Amino acid sequence: MRESGLKPTIRDVARSAGVSVGTVSRVLNAHSKVQPRLREKVEKAIADLGYSPNAVAQSMRSRATHTVGCVIREINISALAAFVGAAHDVLDEAGYSLVLSNSEGRRERERGLLERLSRRQMDGIMIGPYSPMTDEFDAFLRGLGVPIVLVDRDEPSWADAVMTDHAQGIRAAIGHLLGLGHRAISLITGEPSLYPARERLRGYEEAFRAAGLTPDPAIIHASSFLAGAGFRLTSSMLAASKRPTAIIAGGIGMLPGVLKAIRVRGLAIPTDISVIGSGSSELADLHVPPIALQHWDQAEVGRIAANLLLDRILGRTGPDPRHVLVPNAFVLRDSVGPARRS
Amino acid sequence: MRESGLKPTIRDVARSAGVSVGTVSRVLNAHSKVQPRLREKVEKAIADLGYSPNAVAQSMRSRATHTVGCVIREINISALAAFVGAAHDVLDEAGYSLVLSNSEGRRERERGLLERLSRRQMDGIMIGPYSPMTDEFDAFLRGLGVPIVLVDRDEPSWADAVMTDHAQGIRAAIGHLLGLGHRAISLITGEPSLYPARERLRGYEEAFRAAGLTPDPAIIHASSFLAGAGFRLTSSMLAASKRPTAIIAGGIGMLPGVLKAIRVRGLAIPTDISVIGSGSSELADLHVPPIALQHWDQAEVGRIAANLLLDRILGRTGPDPRHVLVPNAFVLRDSVGPARRS
Repeated sequence: MRESGLKPTIRDVARSAGVSVGTVSRVLNAHSKVQPRLREKVEKAIADLGYSPNAVAQSMRSRATHTVGCVIREINISALAAFVGAAHDVLDEAGYSLVLSNSEGRRERERGLLERLSRRQMDGIMIGPYSPMTDEFDAFLRGLGVPIVLVDRDEPSWADAVMTDHAQGIRAAIGHLLGLGHRAISLITGEPSLYPARERLRGYEEAFRAAGLTPDPAIIHASSFLAGAGFRLTSSMLAASKRPTAIIAGGIGMLPGVLKAIRVRGLAIPTDISVIGSGSSELADLHVPPIALQHWDQAEVGRIAANLLLDRILGRTGPDPRHVLVPNAFVLRDSVGPARRS
Repeated sequence: MRESGLKPTIRDVARSAGVSVGTVSRVLNAHSKVQPRLREKVEKAIADLGYSPNAVAQSMRSRATHTVGCVIREINISALAAFVGAAHDVLDEAGYSLVLSNSEGRRERERGLLERLSRRQMDGIMIGPYSPMTDEFDAFLRGLGVPIVLVDRDEPSWADAVMTDHAQGIRAAIGHLLGLGHRAISLITGEPSLYPARERLRGYEEAFRAAGLTPDPAIIHASSFLAGAGFRLTSSMLAASKRPTAIIAGGIGMLPGVLKAIRVRGLAIPTDISVIGSGSSELADLHVPPIALQHWDQAEVGRIAANLLLDRILGRTGPDPRHVLVPNAFVLRDSVGPARRS
């Protein structure tokens, strides 16, 4: 059936199937409607000829690359890997590829990566920006001209978003610690300009207020989610004359640094100090003792983010942005015990 | 300088710079040679006009998408995340994006992902295939028509590859265990058709032979790298009347399952049983006691893989495939002690 020894073209397929090139093109575009009878003919011709569509040329015509960008802070954090893995699976199922970019929490780099993804015509982008959501950054994101799903950011009214209810998990954790006699409860988390940090601070303060107590601001640290901060801040608090009786590592990459600092200091968990992490990890599960957690389903967050984005890309949803809140829980484990008497 | 109120085109840039469209195109292609004087003129015109090249249209012309595919078994394994993160950084530096795909160790899925990446005209692909390197699979890979770097696979003579010297690390580990009186040393690893498993088996046998000893084949399990295998096989060995005195989790995702089985059984490490993992993880570092390792630098593997691929894509290397071997070491930690007397 083929005209020459060269690779078959879309014209060869159309001729062999007895349909127009436009029909073949619609069959190749998974999301176009084609009569089943015509689709069968085209699919048979494609199989007979061994035709392999050139996806880049296809995307030029359809303006769709079937590729989604994802910018995360650091792939090397197990809870973020769970997010990426779950989002990947949903996208893959729908025929979309995932471009992964690592911002390292550097704001200029984050912008550069977003610009590059937009230039490469991603069909959509998932991001939990590390840049604060100022008006200027908000305008920058809108200016990218591509559907965006924000992950764990609540501010903009114009984008789809999936958030987790960090305040809920932290309130429950603090309530439990207060019941065990803890008062010097340290919280280490990121900049308050970022939603997850702000929400953890809110939950922390609400739980103290509900108990009629006032927290000690000297052991609340809301300065950085980055890896070194957990180690550095814990080390300096443990070296102080009055050290906290409990520490909450309020960020998904922060537990290793907190545990390392406690080990370096030679303290026992929970006898000397109680420890609570944020987000699941093999480390938290298999540590001796296992580490109590402010817990949410990070894979579920990935699945929701990918589905919100696909709905937007494929026009399966109305113009209004959708915001989904994933619940949090406090998972009690043996790393939490009664407050040590000082 | 612009002709109309519409977005500036490559022609507008050429006219403004007083050069040909071809020169502008070569400037836009980061890897083409252009006289510095002309490059300056073009860059000034691009800045003046606010010209933004369309990367998809550009790739149609240059046949380069500046995108590299990476197929891994499971993103949710910390050592693989380290590999991906390091490869990403090298590619990003060179202006390349990374498409990440998760095969879940399913062979049909792996093929489907590779075909999709090839159809989307990746400039190159990095993969440690989970499919065995049969002649048929080898032909399939070559047929993709895209530069490939194989990760931890040694078989093909036609592709660049980076491998780690697992036999070296395991020989050292076994040598140390034998010196402590261990004889019932279990090795749990993947299918021998896969290079890392085969090499670990080789190291294991060589170390026994060098000591004039014969290993017990009943506690050597080379059947699967997948997550459940570590737990299942360890559980059944620990339930047997004669249990091993040491276990090597011979795969990067296998340590959690082995530790969990030991915990469920209520055994103490290293008093009741010594444990050695493969590849770094926060779990191994911060477990109490810390877990000894067959160790290599997984980030270095990622950097080498990305550089091999870039060299091939950019023609910075000759036609002969290059193979790089990354050394292994045995990192001794407190999870290893003298053999328990039975």
